[in-house]
Amino acid sequence: MSLFADLQQLLGASHVQSNEEAAPYLTDKQGRYVGQVIAAVHPANTEEVAAVVRACVAADTPVVVQGGNTGLMGGATPDASGHAVLLLLDRLNRVRVVDTDNDTLTVEAGCILQNVQDVAREAGRLFPLSLGAEGSCTIGGNLGTNAGGTAVLRYGNTRELTLGLEVVTAEGEIWNGLRGLRKDNTGYDLRDLYIGSEGTLGIITAATLKLFPLPKAQATALLAFDSLAQAVQFLSHARAGFGASLTAFELLSADCLALLREQFPEGPQPFLGVSQPWFALLELSDNHSETHAREAFEAVLGDAFEKDLLANALIAESLAQSEALWMLRENMSEAQKRAGRNMKHDISVPISQVVAFVSHTDALLQAHFPGVRHFTFGHLGDGNLHYNVAHPLDSTVDAHMANYAALSLLVHDSAHAHGGSISAEHGIGQRKLGLLDRYKSPVELDLMRRIKQALDPKNLLNPGKVVEVAP
Amino acid sequence: MSLFADLQQLLGASHVQSNEEAAPYLTDKQGRYVGQVIAAVHPANTEEVAAVVRACVAADTPVVVQGGNTGLMGGATPDASGHAVLLLLDRLNRVRVVDTDNDTLTVEAGCILQNVQDVAREAGRLFPLSLGAEGSCTIGGNLGTNAGGTAVLRYGNTRELTLGLEVVTAEGEIWNGLRGLRKDNTGYDLRDLYIGSEGTLGIITAATLKLFPLPKAQATALLAFDSLAQAVQFLSHARAGFGASLTAFELLSADCLALLREQFPEGPQPFLGVSQPWFALLELSDNHSETHAREAFEAVLGDAFEKDLLANALIAESLAQSEALWMLRENMSEAQKRAGRNMKHDISVPISQVVAFVSHTDALLQAHFPGVRHFTFGHLGDGNLHYNVAHPLDSTVDAHMANYAALSLLVHDSAHAHGGSISAEHGIGQRKLGLLDRYKSPVELDLMRRIKQALDPKNLLNPGKVVEVAP
Repeated sequence: MSLFADLQQLLGASHVQSNEEAAPYLTDKQGRYVGQVIAAVHPANTEEVAAVVRACVAADTPVVVQGGNTGLMGGATPDASGHAVLLLLDRLNRVRVVDTDNDTLTVEAGCILQNVQDVAREAGRLFPLSLGAEGSCTIGGNLGTNAGGTAVLRYGNTRELTLGLEVVTAEGEIWNGLRGLRKDNTGYDLRDLYIGSEGTLGIITAATLKLFPLPKAQATALLAFDSLAQAVQFLSHARAGFGASLTAFELLSADCLALLREQFPEGPQPFLGVSQPWFALLELSDNHSETHAREAFEAVLGDAFEKDLLANALIAESLAQSEALWMLRENMSEAQKRAGRNMKHDISVPISQVVAFVSHTDALLQAHFPGVRHFTFGHLGDGNLHYNVAHPLDSTVDAHMANYAALSLLVHDSAHAHGGSISAEHGIGQRKLGLLDRYKSPVELDLMRRIKQALDPKNLLNPGKVVEVAP
Repeated sequence: MSLFADLQQLLGASHVQSNEEAAPYLTDKQGRYVGQVIAAVHPANTEEVAAVVRACVAADTPVVVQGGNTGLMGGATPDASGHAVLLLLDRLNRVRVVDTDNDTLTVEAGCILQNVQDVAREAGRLFPLSLGAEGSCTIGGNLGTNAGGTAVLRYGNTRELTLGLEVVTAEGEIWNGLRGLRKDNTGYDLRDLYIGSEGTLGIITAATLKLFPLPKAQATALLAFDSLAQAVQFLSHARAGFGASLTAFELLSADCLALLREQFPEGPQPFLGVSQPWFALLELSDNHSETHAREAFEAVLGDAFEKDLLANALIAESLAQSEALWMLRENMSEAQKRAGRNMKHDISVPISQVVAFVSHTDALLQAHFPGVRHFTFGHLGDGNLHYNVAHPLDSTVDAHMANYAALSLLVHDSAHAHGGSISAEHGIGQRKLGLLDRYKSPVELDLMRRIKQALDPKNLLNPGKVVEVAP
């Protein structure tokens, strides 16, 4: 019997799609990669996932897992050989346990992130992971890529939000590691090995996640700075003054703000005529009250003005104003898209290196590619910048994009030289795989390969992603 | 040339000790295990650690790493065969980098925890890891065991406090993973695999640790509860009311308090005559001011009284009173020691299972071992109880301790049945190694073995600890 027929028998014919039927899943979000498959399968539960993996192992067939297909690195797109089975977890979308006394939530991997947030809120709790794609990405995808987002400063990456996992191994066995424990030192940390491994070591089918108290009040401000150095100094001041109440600190350059005004003339227009080169969106979460949040805000900002750590501040006076300020940050992707393609770099450096990185890299790019325009923004509180570069105004998008490899190399080399990472929150997938030889030591690559070979000796789980192994 | 002579040549004769000279390191803190070695070596730096490992690999000789020798599971004590080399990192005690803008500190593994705390404080920052042995344990040992302590509720275990590591591999190569990044998704999470692996996968030689703002004020209270269920409900209330300001919530039973009074008659005597069965030490850290901390305290406690979540509260009015309250918690180990040996269990369960676990296990032990006395205390905020059991008053310590295996089995079975862990913060070492077959699934043990074999194929790093591999 063929593998296709085997899979139909295991799952029911209606849950197994042909290559043609699976078309929507076979191109990545950016349209950069197009794959082919033997079949796309929609198992109903963890046991069926395990059965699919066992059938694929028996047929020596690769298994590629995909969540909401919102990744940027092609990590969830099978290759073009047509040899793989695509595993879709949309039917694993149950909330298994809500445990408010333990402040945990156990959900299946196919749950949409926004639904997980909603379930938490209905239970009177906060699940803080928040990112642009939250309406369509799945928690399984978030776990597979250790997703970041806008609340990392306070709550950490997906890794820090996870207590336990359920995983189907490369042999199609089920590891039940769904522990709701804050402390458990009984062996190797398998959980964190699977998180961020992009489906190359095992298939995450469920997770026990941490919940937090819902904040009683939030306060938002847009701040203006005379320099990037001032913004970094202010951040340190704000961390000391707000402590864990500081939940977001999102940087936007003046050029980003100008782009937003240009592309969204109907949108909010804060700080019109203000000449500062850098801005940041600051959010505070308070567990007392609106008044309390407001007082803390005014105390810390007032102190910052006195110490010359801040040039200007616009404090949201209402929820509507707060949402308008956040809309600036959220519109950045779309504003860039409307202005034409640009080169995106998801880098991170130590916060103490942000100023040096930006000034060095800006100058370097101007020397090699005169006139390119910098749209630098991102999660300054995490040292994570979206260091994006658009075409010179006297040139074309196409001419600019032709320089992608050479320009990106300069940016990544610079991030690396400043102690940074070439992928802060987007992962490696297939798109950055070729860069690892340049930025990882042979020792680290060897350790990664050994782990891949130990947990997936036949190299059947999402092959050709994250790490290259000898055929 | 013998390995001993090789090591002398590598490190200088004065840094290589014979088995006899190494005696202080060869018995564990509890006096439970006594080892023998070929040599104990004190390398000066990471390169020398790597050279020692390479020499040992060439001679097919196991390497056991030891920090401050304060572990409770015998994890740092070599076996009695006399075949191993003991690796001591006391000379790797440098602070490499203090980066206040990045809120990180890079230190070598041999640094004493208290010194790391002090270096952070001198830089105007907090390194929050805090535990009883902090004056003698090393940060390398904390990393190797993923140490917990009294600030986990707010700041997490050692794992959550660590951004990067430097590790010597089983082949004597150096992995430089000393990244000071909050976000880095460029491959498998080697860092968290080494943390908590108790020297069985690699030798941690340095780490980049997270720093936090120093709190401006702290407030401490001892609370009395009518039941354990009330204490758990109060905890949920306190988390919502205090948010991340809640830094400790340490449980003490009335029997613990009575024991403290008995063994430390000169010590603090709070709540004399109060009849509640459970107490908790609550600590709040505030980033505003003493007044602010005090107001938050009174608001949340007042609300708790109204909602019947609290029976009584004693708020420290001064630093001296706060220290007196903390002394209760800190004296618990010594109080038990003075009262004679007892059976200690370092378990954790989901917080929602704490009440069921304690009532079920108390009843079970009374049924099987009538009259045993329960001294239950610990980190309720993390679901981590030190569930300790002393001899019946009409029996002897020796008669009681003879039942250790049978009684502990009941306790561990019960923790496991309540979704818990048999080692919350003390690790596995050699002492709990035999228990893993009972409480870990074959799938998980197999995954652990595969990782051990992948990273230490010759089984030379701390063999016979954490995981058993086929000879």
